[in-house]
Amino acid sequence: MAVYTNVSDEDLAQYLTEYDLGEAIAFKGIAEGVENSNYFLETTKGRFILTLFEKRANPADLPYFIELKQHLAANGYSCPLPVAAKDGKALRTLAGRPSVIITFLQGLSPRVPNAVQCRELGIGLARLHQAAANFAMQRENSLGPSSWRVLWEGREQTAETLQPGLAEKIATDLKSVAEAQSSLSSLPRGTIHADLFPDNAFFLGDRFTGAIDFYFACTDALAYDLAVCVNAWAFESDGAFNYSKAANLIAGYQSVRPLDADEKAAFPILCRGAALRFFLTRLVDWTDTPDDALVKPKDPLDYADRLRFHRTTRSISDYGG
Amino acid sequence: MAVYTNVSDEDLAQYLTEYDLGEAIAFKGIAEGVENSNYFLETTKGRFILTLFEKRANPADLPYFIELKQHLAANGYSCPLPVAAKDGKALRTLAGRPSVIITFLQGLSPRVPNAVQCRELGIGLARLHQAAANFAMQRENSLGPSSWRVLWEGREQTAETLQPGLAEKIATDLKSVAEAQSSLSSLPRGTIHADLFPDNAFFLGDRFTGAIDFYFACTDALAYDLAVCVNAWAFESDGAFNYSKAANLIAGYQSVRPLDADEKAAFPILCRGAALRFFLTRLVDWTDTPDDALVKPKDPLDYADRLRFHRTTRSISDYGG
Repeated sequence: MAVYTNVSDEDLAQYLTEYDLGEAIAFKGIAEGVENSNYFLETTKGRFILTLFEKRANPADLPYFIELKQHLAANGYSCPLPVAAKDGKALRTLAGRPSVIITFLQGLSPRVPNAVQCRELGIGLARLHQAAANFAMQRENSLGPSSWRVLWEGREQTAETLQPGLAEKIATDLKSVAEAQSSLSSLPRGTIHADLFPDNAFFLGDRFTGAIDFYFACTDALAYDLAVCVNAWAFESDGAFNYSKAANLIAGYQSVRPLDADEKAAFPILCRGAALRFFLTRLVDWTDTPDDALVKPKDPLDYADRLRFHRTTRSISDYGG
Repeated sequence: MAVYTNVSDEDLAQYLTEYDLGEAIAFKGIAEGVENSNYFLETTKGRFILTLFEKRANPADLPYFIELKQHLAANGYSCPLPVAAKDGKALRTLAGRPSVIITFLQGLSPRVPNAVQCRELGIGLARLHQAAANFAMQRENSLGPSSWRVLWEGREQTAETLQPGLAEKIATDLKSVAEAQSSLSSLPRGTIHADLFPDNAFFLGDRFTGAIDFYFACTDALAYDLAVCVNAWAFESDGAFNYSKAANLIAGYQSVRPLDADEKAAFPILCRGAALRFFLTRLVDWTDTPDDALVKPKDPLDYADRLRFHRTTRSISDYGG
């Protein structure tokens, strides 16, 4: 949670003259988001979120993210909609950063999702895949399997320090995922969110109201997105796997988009791969984040626990699917 | 900027049943406030700020702060109004912390206030003093002159490390303020904000819309509050004194509540005392804040610069008054 870039009231007033949104009447930094700076912005015409893309965001990717959200919203999927300025462009520059104003999405992120919310999230994920089905743009998954060996390189010792014996296990995980890669490449592909954690999902009560933070979205196996969600939604804070949450998530997804036989067969290795991806990026953040950073790195061992579980599964039925 | 205490969606839903505010439809941590955790809360009935008082807040002081805001609002002064729950009480408990829901105040905090805003702020400060004039509760200024020697004790070496020769100058400042104390004790007193920095003042354009963050409010010399504002509003980021901003601030104040002869005579020493107070609390935070804290300590030397200026002034006319 952080605001990395400050925006002066003068800069904001000047910026808003490019839009047809009236004048600012409230502007508050939001303690949310790890990668970018977000502000709550109220103008005389409504409420919005203003995002400044920080240095980890690749400017070349930004049009993809913005057009994806516009496409989803045009296809009836609930997500924040980038607002075009008077010249028709939504992607702009503020305080020296690429920036965008998006509409404000109602809802609250669950801290501890319940099983009903998991089912609703599964439905919401499948609908996202459907709404994005005819989205023409493509983006490679920059945090896909081919990046994992690079992330892992030189970090064996850190893993050992965190948990003796972990380095060898991770090496086995990487090997297993690499061996499965050729069979995974033929799975149904499309646009995936790739980071649909509870923080990025909004609910009113148990009703899913939409997803935010599409900044890892990419073109990849659709079932991998569901595997990310199993990791993110179906484990408790003590690391325990919650079978009924996973079962609900998968059932919700399949009520809209049934998985085919190949996707079902690949599900355990997809879950293991997804856990590996978050383990590795957390491991990198763990070692690379300076002590005085505004954002505290998340514990990689949460994902070491998940990997331990995924090493034991043999079929999607072990996940309640 | 930080949110120290997380509130789960379940806890929030339960908490809102104590109020007549409907249900939550948005809830976001705000990257604002150094002492407490603040959330933007939208319910089906409106928009609010939810504050959790963290460990530096003295629970015994909270009724004073809450009743002061209620008194000010009842007397037509624009500030966030604590919202009473169904049982009539505004001060409650959430996530193990004392908490309050306050109304949402429109406006933006200026990063670099202009001279017109300084005049408006002066008017706003004087109106605050007027609106609080018949407020019955009292609170001692826990960061008043008697606390300064305590704060200073054992920190001479830190000051020397920051700037060689500084310790001796601070000792002189403390001595000068102590010598003036008997004459200051007879100045007109009342309820003061005591921390009305630009972050705590809201404007729409150049119009002052109200003050927030009354958690240092106390009973003290009214002119001391104006001296705090001179320090907070009339120096540039490079430390330079801005005469026209100070003159506007004092003129705005006097257009509503003229200073008497004693207050004018005491003004230079009041400004020096106010600078000393912020220098000393920043010095304490500088040494006591762990490197991994969410909030970065502010540089005490900003106030060493102000003190250097205040040592040279002889009358309120040196401040444009």
